[in-house]
Amino acid sequence: MMPRFRVAMAQINTTVGDFEGNTRKIIERLEEAQALGADLVAFPELAIPGYPPEDLLIKTEFVRENLACLEEIARHAVRAAAVVGVADSGDHLYNAAAVLAAGRVAGVYRKMRLPNYGVFDEKRYFQPGVESPVFVIHGVPVGVTVCEDIWAPGGPLLAQSLAGALVAVNINGSPYSIGKWRVRDEMLKTRARDYAVAIVYTNLVGGQDELVFDGMSVVVGPTGGIAARGPAFDEALVVVDLDVEAIRGIRRYNPIRTWDGAQETGIRAPVYTLSTAAPAPDRPPLPGRPVAAPPEELEEIYRALVLGTRDYVRKNRFRTVVVGLSGGIDSSLVAAIAVDAVGAENVRAATMPSRFTSEESRRYAAEVAAALGIRTIDLPIEPVAAAYEGVLREAFAGRPRDIAEENLQARTRGNLLMALSNKFGWLVLTTGNKSELSVGYATLYGDMAGGFAVIKDVPKTLVYRLARWRNARGAHPVIPAGVLERAPTAELREQQRDVDTLPPYEVLDPILALYVEEDRSAEEIVAQGFDPATVARVIAMVDASEYKRRQAPPGVKITPKAFGKDRRLPITNWYRSRTASETPTAR
Amino acid sequence: MMPRFRVAMAQINTTVGDFEGNTRKIIERLEEAQALGADLVAFPELAIPGYPPEDLLIKTEFVRENLACLEEIARHAVRAAAVVGVADSGDHLYNAAAVLAAGRVAGVYRKMRLPNYGVFDEKRYFQPGVESPVFVIHGVPVGVTVCEDIWAPGGPLLAQSLAGALVAVNINGSPYSIGKWRVRDEMLKTRARDYAVAIVYTNLVGGQDELVFDGMSVVVGPTGGIAARGPAFDEALVVVDLDVEAIRGIRRYNPIRTWDGAQETGIRAPVYTLSTAAPAPDRPPLPGRPVAAPPEELEEIYRALVLGTRDYVRKNRFRTVVVGLSGGIDSSLVAAIAVDAVGAENVRAATMPSRFTSEESRRYAAEVAAALGIRTIDLPIEPVAAAYEGVLREAFAGRPRDIAEENLQARTRGNLLMALSNKFGWLVLTTGNKSELSVGYATLYGDMAGGFAVIKDVPKTLVYRLARWRNARGAHPVIPAGVLERAPTAELREQQRDVDTLPPYEVLDPILALYVEEDRSAEEIVAQGFDPATVARVIAMVDASEYKRRQAPPGVKITPKAFGKDRRLPITNWYRSRTASETPTAR
Repeated sequence: MMPRFRVAMAQINTTVGDFEGNTRKIIERLEEAQALGADLVAFPELAIPGYPPEDLLIKTEFVRENLACLEEIARHAVRAAAVVGVADSGDHLYNAAAVLAAGRVAGVYRKMRLPNYGVFDEKRYFQPGVESPVFVIHGVPVGVTVCEDIWAPGGPLLAQSLAGALVAVNINGSPYSIGKWRVRDEMLKTRARDYAVAIVYTNLVGGQDELVFDGMSVVVGPTGGIAARGPAFDEALVVVDLDVEAIRGIRRYNPIRTWDGAQETGIRAPVYTLSTAAPAPDRPPLPGRPVAAPPEELEEIYRALVLGTRDYVRKNRFRTVVVGLSGGIDSSLVAAIAVDAVGAENVRAATMPSRFTSEESRRYAAEVAAALGIRTIDLPIEPVAAAYEGVLREAFAGRPRDIAEENLQARTRGNLLMALSNKFGWLVLTTGNKSELSVGYATLYGDMAGGFAVIKDVPKTLVYRLARWRNARGAHPVIPAGVLERAPTAELREQQRDVDTLPPYEVLDPILALYVEEDRSAEEIVAQGFDPATVARVIAMVDASEYKRRQAPPGVKITPKAFGKDRRLPITNWYRSRTASETPTAR
Repeated sequence: MMPRFRVAMAQINTTVGDFEGNTRKIIERLEEAQALGADLVAFPELAIPGYPPEDLLIKTEFVRENLACLEEIARHAVRAAAVVGVADSGDHLYNAAAVLAAGRVAGVYRKMRLPNYGVFDEKRYFQPGVESPVFVIHGVPVGVTVCEDIWAPGGPLLAQSLAGALVAVNINGSPYSIGKWRVRDEMLKTRARDYAVAIVYTNLVGGQDELVFDGMSVVVGPTGGIAARGPAFDEALVVVDLDVEAIRGIRRYNPIRTWDGAQETGIRAPVYTLSTAAPAPDRPPLPGRPVAAPPEELEEIYRALVLGTRDYVRKNRFRTVVVGLSGGIDSSLVAAIAVDAVGAENVRAATMPSRFTSEESRRYAAEVAAALGIRTIDLPIEPVAAAYEGVLREAFAGRPRDIAEENLQARTRGNLLMALSNKFGWLVLTTGNKSELSVGYATLYGDMAGGFAVIKDVPKTLVYRLARWRNARGAHPVIPAGVLERAPTAELREQQRDVDTLPPYEVLDPILALYVEEDRSAEEIVAQGFDPATVARVIAMVDASEYKRRQAPPGVKITPKAFGKDRRLPITNWYRSRTASETPTAR
């Protein structure tokens, strides 16, 4: 029997621009894979510079250093071949997968399909590759592609399969959104069956600014079976043995044999033979079960928020974070995420009551802090609010109290948190959710002030579901039942409740999903059964608060369309999507 | 003699998303051109939706409305043909120039070269066109292209010239940067000579978020002469008569006759005949001299800042702006720009002295307000600063005063300005310059708090030059000589001066230009004669303050690379460009 082809996926957490650390991590995982007898080890997309490097790619020195690191890594690829993501520079810049073997760079594949939508700007930096090589490693023909290449049928994957590839290594930096791994699974199973290849889909893990990468690398066999799966949100070296003869057998019956390579793709797919000796027959046993179980949905989202927060804190060299605890659901959840991200000993809470803060809010804030085991600092804001009002008395004479005085309270709290940040070097975590940020129900420089907005992409109704999930998960609930049950309030004036200003969140959130995430028109949203006046009001609020979002701190993207690079709307914008009742005359 | 071909360039100020207003403006200018006997009138790029519409283009309803407006405009194009920028939707979305004639849409050119660098994201939205038609209007073959199409040789302009075009209409939304019109002039003169065509380069005018468009549309004859030029930073209808027979004569001797169309470009250039009757011989005389004089450099920059500010204020439906006047150069210049943008009656100044505010600062602030004729509100910050320190006393016990207390003062001022904004509906203009924002010498939520950052792309040394220019321009200086001469200071502690923290601006600014605008490495900057330790310090400051810039308000782009869409760097970024002295061992 032909010995199996041992493949390792190094699902690592890189840091953008950390050449030394990324290179060290790649070499360590490469050595580990070699010690385990791997024939091939795959690393994520742009593993050497970190992903996404954005405009660092414009610096010629940055690209030069990344190539020097590749040479260093290549010297270690002696027993196994390695596929490593690198910014390749020839006449142009390419998003490339270098193939390392026998201690040198044996070949390069350059990404052909460059995503330039959503959060991606790859056509800003890269030229598309034009060639789709196959590398024969220990007699096994291996195709190599990068991320987006595999998301549409045809193209380099087909060209490589037609040229004989039985194993398709696809290296990725695939940003997380809720349940995306299921879509990936389905797509990969279809591709594997279509082209009768085993797909080795290696993904990045970790947080980078607004993006989090979930890992969950998979090996999908040519009949669509999951042969291996890496853990979610953790680093891992996932090793699996592939029965290449079985793949070859399946290939003999596959429809791709009836196609004509050159006609189908127009892509040149040369074959480079790196080694022909069969894989070694005697190797150590595989380390553990290669198929990790995916998390269920709420755990998945929660862990995305935890990892995104932890990596933002650590990779920006902070140790301690501070959260303003109001006794409401948002700040309670953010505090719990913070504790799970960096440990209770590295989380501080500030309580900043005013005359409008209810007794129950004070009590709940204290209970959350106690349940989480975090230290609190009490900073009553009344003296500052009073001083502001005194300074402004003359300027405001004759004017009724309004949002100006409400915002002053929120901004006083923002300033106090930033003062703690400046004095002690703590990172301020803001606590606003996506529903509020969508409609502008947030104070710029007030509750929006801080370094990282943990739940900025989490709609309010999901905030509740996550809080309940977190409560059920630990030894004891950390968020008091009363917090989950009370009516949401900003407590910036007497008896204020969110529903005085906003529709109930069960109505608001689905409208926002349609308008913000799906770019549906007012008419289309109304057609789904929502009240026209409510739809019109929500859309007007969303459009009018773009200027606030432009000055918001980054936070973890978890939905298909987050605010930030994902959604690039002008501030100056007279366009309004109108419902039929708002449009008096047809154009 | 063949009657001349009368061409009009409608250099208009559109607003993104204002279909009604943009359509009305286009029709008015079209009627005006027709009344003047124009044969052809050209409007800017994406004139109907406004430019750049960014992700509004993802809304199908937005594209549909823009096409409905095109049909409405077409009905008015009866006597003249019109070239109008529109988002064209077929199987994909295209950045198009519609050709209107005889009351209908007679043809469409779809932009082939889509810029996706700098501030541009056109590959995010558009597919490139594949065909390069020539339209025969009154017997004159006219090629039509859009902006970027003409910035590189060959391509659609060459294809159209080879297909017989004698007039090349190029419609633009070309964002301003200092002296860019000179580069455009040179490029257009070269293109016109290369292809022996008259180029009708019609540009947008006006401000849109961070971009300002300078107008200065030009007609360049086939020997490189400027036949017409629109004014800078103002709307205009520029009309000129072209001697098409003369162009034809020049074409007969031009090298393009020796080229082979299909071989040279590979682009199909069909010819559509819209009208063959010669232009009317009797028409009204041309309205005035068609060649406006370009402004000299400082006037050009100043007017860019004025127009960018005015349009941000007005297009976001504000009437009044408020500026914090410190008695320093930055806020003095911003106040002058504000007055020139929206009128002294719509500008308020707030003076917000602390115990660290010198007598001369108070006096200068008052002098600037008086010279500009703006009303001031005096809001001493001491009571608020004292209240903050009182609330924080226990938390800060045993810690020396530091940047935390300094920032509290800046943030108190930010809050007071925002309170005025919330109470009276005024837009807060911030006063920070590019040098400060580059190195992070600015307080987030403090002096950075506001809606529009007028001089965020103006280096400090240029602030001084602009202030002197503004002083020399009016009936009397508005910025006291003392402000121009005193050492810059933030006045957040006793005897503070900028040079305590930063290199002198004459050293800092050129280093920043090399690092921020040109992406040069530390080594390269040192090689230009700068002190290695200073270069290293400046680069470290720039890199470490990316998080502040991400939360900065928009402001007018005037340099080749502004902060914002122009420069997309990660916040989480371990890369440091190091000088030789910083790198202890070579890799």
